[in-house]
Parts: sequence; C-alpha cells; structure tokens
Amino acid sequence: MTLKRAYNFNAGPSALPEEVLVKAQKELVNFNETGMSVMELSHRSKDYEAIHNEAKTLLAELLSIPDNYEILFIQGGASLQFSMIPMNFLTEEKVGNYVLTGSWSEKALKEAKILGRSTAVAATTKETNYNRIPKLTELNVSPDDGYVHITSNNTIFGTQWKEFPNIENNMLIADMSSDILSKPLPIEKFSMIYAGAQKNLGPSGVTVVIIRKDLLEKTNENTPSMLRYDTYAKNNSLYNTPPTFSIYMLKNVLQWVSERGGVAETDRRNQEKAALIYNAIDESNGFYQGHAETESRSLMNLTFNLRNEELSKKFLQEAKEEGFVGLNGHRSVGGCRASTYNAVPYEACDQLQQFMTKFKKRHE
Amino acid sequence: MTLKRAYNFNAGPSALPEEVLVKAQKELVNFNETGMSVMELSHRSKDYEAIHNEAKTLLAELLSIPDNYEILFIQGGASLQFSMIPMNFLTEEKVGNYVLTGSWSEKALKEAKILGRSTAVAATTKETNYNRIPKLTELNVSPDDGYVHITSNNTIFGTQWKEFPNIENNMLIADMSSDILSKPLPIEKFSMIYAGAQKNLGPSGVTVVIIRKDLLEKTNENTPSMLRYDTYAKNNSLYNTPPTFSIYMLKNVLQWVSERGGVAETDRRNQEKAALIYNAIDESNGFYQGHAETESRSLMNLTFNLRNEELSKKFLQEAKEEGFVGLNGHRSVGGCRASTYNAVPYEACDQLQQFMTKFKKRHE
Ligand SMILES: Cc1ncc(COP(=O)(O)O)c(C=O)c1O
Ligand SMILES: Cc1ncc(COP(=O)(O)O)c(C=O)c1O
Ligand SMILES: [Mg+2]
Ligand SMILES: [Mg+2]
Ligand SMILES: [Mg+2]
Ligand SMILES: [Mg+2]
Repeated sequence: MTLKRAYNFNAGPSALPEEVLVKAQKELVNFNETGMSVMELSHRSKDYEAIHNEAKTLLAELLSIPDNYEILFIQGGASLQFSMIPMNFLTEEKVGNYVLTGSWSEKALKEAKILGRSTAVAATTKETNYNRIPKLTELNVSPDDGYVHITSNNTIFGTQWKEFPNIENNMLIADMSSDILSKPLPIEKFSMIYAGAQKNLGPSGVTVVIIRKDLLEKTNENTPSMLRYDTYAKNNSLYNTPPTFSIYMLKNVLQWVSERGGVAETDRRNQEKAALIYNAIDESNGFYQGHAETESRSLMNLTFNLRNEELSKKFLQEAKEEGFVGLNGHRSVGGCRASTYNAVPYEACDQLQQFMTKFKKRHE
Repeated sequence: MTLKRAYNFNAGPSALPEEVLVKAQKELVNFNETGMSVMELSHRSKDYEAIHNEAKTLLAELLSIPDNYEILFIQGGASLQFSMIPMNFLTEEKVGNYVLTGSWSEKALKEAKILGRSTAVAATTKETNYNRIPKLTELNVSPDDGYVHITSNNTIFGTQWKEFPNIENNMLIADMSSDILSKPLPIEKFSMIYAGAQKNLGPSGVTVVIIRKDLLEKTNENTPSMLRYDTYAKNNSLYNTPPTFSIYMLKNVLQWVSERGGVAETDRRNQEKAALIYNAIDESNGFYQGHAETESRSLMNLTFNLRNEELSKKFLQEAKEEGFVGLNGHRSVGGCRASTYNAVPYEACDQLQQFMTKFKKRHE
C-alpha cells in the first residue's frame, strides 16, 4: 500500500492495522451489499449478529478460552470495570485485594474504596516509582480475599507481569487493557480478565470481559442491570444497544491477528520490535535510561529518559518533526514512552531505533 | 450520489445521512492529513480535542442550550442513565417520580427500584397499552420529588409529548433518545436531558447528556467516579478514554443538520415525512390502523397494524422484498413501525406511502 502513514506510538487509542482500516473504509457506506453502513444496521439484525458472534468466536480461538468462560462486550472503558468489579464481587465479608504496580491499579483500588468495600494491598512497588513488578513471593494474599486484582501491563510505567500467581481461591482478576492479545495466555489462572479495546483490540468504545461462568452467580442483588455481569452474559451482550461499530472493528482486528498467525506469532513479532528499542537504550552507555527494571520491562510500553529534561524535550521535538507520534511519556514518569502494540509495524520501530542512534550521535 | 441505498426505517441504530457516511469514508484512513485514522488519534491530542469540542459547540448552537448547562458524553447507552439518575439525584428523603408512557419509562423506573430508592408514578397510560401521552393536568407531582422523569418520545409505542410540563422544583428529566434534535426544544424547562446517539445523533456508543450546572453539586458521595455526572463535567468528558469515533460521527451529523438549516427546518421536514405515512393510514378506511391516539402521534416512530396478523406478516414480507428495512413493530405492540428519524430521506417515506397504497389496493 502506498499511503503515507504516521509512525504512531500512541499509548491508546493507538495504531490500528492499515489493512483493517482499508477494509473498513471500503465497507463503510455499503456493508455486505445491504445498502447500509454497519453503523446503520439494527443490533437485532442477522447481519449485525453475525459480526458480534464472530468477534466472540475469534477471540475464543485466538486466546484458547475454555468453554467455562463467557466473553462480554461492555461500554464505559476499563475505568468502569474498576467499579463493576467490587460492585459485583465484594460482599460484606469479602476483601478486594489489590497489587499496586502503577496508576491504573491505584485507580482500581480507589473505586473499591469509594464504594465503601473492604480492601487490602497485596503488594506495592510505589516506593521505587513503580519501576518493577513484585515477585510472586512478595504477594500478601488470604483465603478471605474476594479477589486478587492485578494490572498485567502498566501502560504508564512500562512494566509487565511475566508470570502469573496461582491464587488459591481461584479469584485472580486482571486488567489486561494494554497487553491482551499480545501473546498466549494461561486463561485458567484467571477468574476474570478485562481490557479496554483501544490498544491491541480495536478503537475505543468497547471493553472486553472474559469471565468464568461460576462468577456470574455471585453477583450482588440491587446492583443496577447495566452494571451486572450476568445481564451481559444472559443477553449475549445485547441487553441494550451495543457499540456496534467498535465491535465490528474489533472483529476485523481479530481476523487480522488470526490471518497473521495468531498470538504466538504476534508475540514473536512484538519481542522483535521491542528488542530494537531496548537495544538502542542498552547500547547507549546511559544516554538513554530505561525506567523499568530489566526483568519487568514491558513489551508494549517502552519507557525511557534522557540525561535531563532539556534533552528529553529536544528529543521529543525532533522526533515529532521526523513524523513520530505519541512519544511523550506520561507526566507521572516524564521522559519518553514508545507504545509498540500489535498494530505498530516493525518498520516504525526500526525507524525509531535509527532515530535514537542518530540523535545520540549528535548530542552525546 | 449514485449509491444504491436501502429504505432504512430501523428504530435504532438507524439511518445516517449519506453525506456523512461518504465524508467518514473519505477520511477514514487518513484524517486531516495526519497519516492516521480518527480512531488512531490520542484522545489527548489537539486533532481529537477539536472534534470533541466542536461536537459540543454545534449541539449547543443547534438546540440553543443556555450557558448554565453542561453537555456531557457518556458511554453505556440510555440504559445506563436509568441507573445514573437515581444514583446521582435520589437521597433518602427524595422521591423519583416517573411518568410511564411505555417500556422505556418502565425500565427507567425499574432501575431506581433496584437501587432501593423511593419512587412514585406521576401518571401512566398502561391501561390502554400506552397509546397516548397523559394530559399535563393528569400528572401527580409533589414538592418532595427529587425529579420528575419523562420519556419524550416512545420509540416502541409511537407516541410523543407535544408540550412539556412546568415542574415547580425545576427538576424535570427527559429521556429524549428517540426525538432529540428533531425539532426546537424549550431547554430551560428541563434540569437534564439525555439521549443515546443511535437515532438522530449518530452511531451507537455515545450518550449525550445536557445537564443544568446546579445539579452537578447535588451528586451523592460514594457514587463511583465513572457514574457521577460531575466527573464528566469537570473533565470535559475526558476523564477516561471517550468513544472517539462515535463522537466524531456525532460531530459530522450535527454539522449536516446545521448545514441543512438547523432544527426548525428539520422539524418542518420531519412533519412532511410523517404526514405522508399518517395520511396513508388515515385515508385507508381502517385498512391500516394507527396504534397511537391522533394527538399523541410520534413524528419519529409511526406505529400501525393491519386487519389481522396474517395480513401484517404479508405486508412486512412484501415490503422487505421491495427493499424496505426495519418495518417490523416491536413485539409488545405487534404490527408495523416506520421510524422516520432526521436522516431518513423524504424519498424513502414517499416510497413507503406508495407501497402502502398499492398493497391496500391489492388486498382490500
Ligand atoms: C492498564 C490500563 N487500565 C485502564 C485504563 C483506563 O482505560 P479507559 O480509558 O478505557 O477507561 C488504561 C488506559 O490507558 C490502561 O492503560
Ligand atoms: C426512548 C428510549 N430510551 C432508552 C433506550 C435504550 O437505549 P440504549 O440501547 O442506548 O441503552 C431506547 C432504545 O431504543 C429508547 O428508544
Ligand atoms: Mg500504569
Ligand atoms: Mg435500542
Ligand atoms: Mg416506548
Ligand atoms: Mg486511556
């Protein structure tokens, strides 16, 4: 294809596969010879339901999701999940136990507290500005936990869990917003996984929830219908009007991953891409400094600083002029962040590595 | 334009303006020469924020929304509003008072009850299968009401409020999902108006809330952040990732309405379109029977039955073969429903009228 595409390193919403965008463009006004756009289809129509169900089937296949799990599509972003989780699973006696590895886990904990539920902190790495994932042996868990909540990939700080704990009561919940679908997953270790779509899955507007079926029975009474997981499960996520176009795009992205060899192949590509940039950091003699400890490094969000703020600013300014988008670090870490999600091409990472090397030569 | 477009009478998601779809198609892969799709823009970027803010400005202009109101974009559909309203506005002493004019008002009331809040029914027309809007004098309101809730247009039953009550304590809330933007509105009569976008405003995935600013101070403590109106107001609806593409489409639809002469002109066109079909009903000597009482007739959802179920089925079958989409009535009313929202062209209504006349000649 001959389009001039930006080198898009946005943290989310982020790059989508060019092939998926081209397909969506082609079908936008007249989907499947219906004389209508996907956006104009009734959510109760056969054409739409086929899209909806195919998205579920593809996700189940790609992640090898066992039959005792349901896949749900919910609106409100991952942030609404921060509230739905305690609303659905924390009764009087149960404790919501959170592993704090960054701003998003902090926010998840905060919502459980707002609701007045009992909470605990299983571990935190805040004292080193969240530059690492705690070791599994550091986790303080208890049989009274209603669940243990982790953030599998910390979008802001650039750290990622490499191995997941075995939680005795089988109630491990993970926010996988920024690394779902980037690699194979041991689904059975989790009672629930959730992810806002706008990184690896599609555009913003839909959140994917993978939930073990036995949890659907635990839902609290007098939780509003739209905030109960079982409402979505019983109605194939069609209790009310779903975000149909976002789900259509999700389906297209899943198809694209599938056609490129699935999540094992995606993982291989992601490792290759991240290696380019981490190598540029590691071989820079400290010109670039990674924020995360080496063993905790994320393959999705690569965070680094330059010698001082002035130089970081210069780097970001020149990168922008060269056509790189979204390299600014989040204000809580500063410096730079390259988000190399599934849809970011190797070429963009290669270009970034070359730019980093050239920039270093000029400013060392 | 030369596209073969369906005659789309879907109740929602529903027809979008062809011009808007063509524009979205053109811009889909490369928005504004950014080298990115709108879906790939960061929600914190200048390009996206311009879209977001323009949607707000256009809506404020089109509906003459006074400065003491905020416009919010929320996910979850109108159905989530059914819960957010009692969560935000009903304290111990206050009563949520609902006017029941159809299934959607019933569902709104149900969510307040699930939350264990005090509720009342200001009036209901259920005894005649919701075929009319109650007279303003029929409403049972009280100074203890936290709010009075109405459904301005009843999508399923095909009735519409023609005049709105003056509520003493200034707490009138309206679900306008299926008629917002169809005509000029006396905004000052309302403390809050909400509408799922997927009828007159755009695709599904975003709900528009117009709320008087003094209400933002009334919000209950320990309501989750994502379910508090003030969270959206304080953060320009960017507290978390908004459904960026849905809001982009909303912006395009608002631009289209504006370019065609605004809501007064839209109202004139809608009256013309509805008249075509209501005339076909009224001049059929009872071959077609409208569900709604004449004074309560909706200009958006036109509900009618044929002599018997068999004939209705035949009508729907033949209509489908002629290229009409979405004419099936909702199961709670049966028969037929033509939804003639803003984006449904005059020509589609004209074709439907002709079809109704021909069908009658053949089967009378
Ligand atoms: C790990 C993680 N969790 C949660 C969120 C919040 O997601 P949303 O904006 O969809 O609410 C983000 C957003 O970037 C994230 O990266
Ligand atoms: C008047 C009215 N209110 C509420 C709803 C529910 O909207 P949503 O599906 O966005 O939750 C609808 C849907 O058709 C409606 O017509
Ligand atoms: Mg983080
Ligand atoms: Mg609907
Ligand atoms: Mg109704
Ligand atoms: Mg975000």
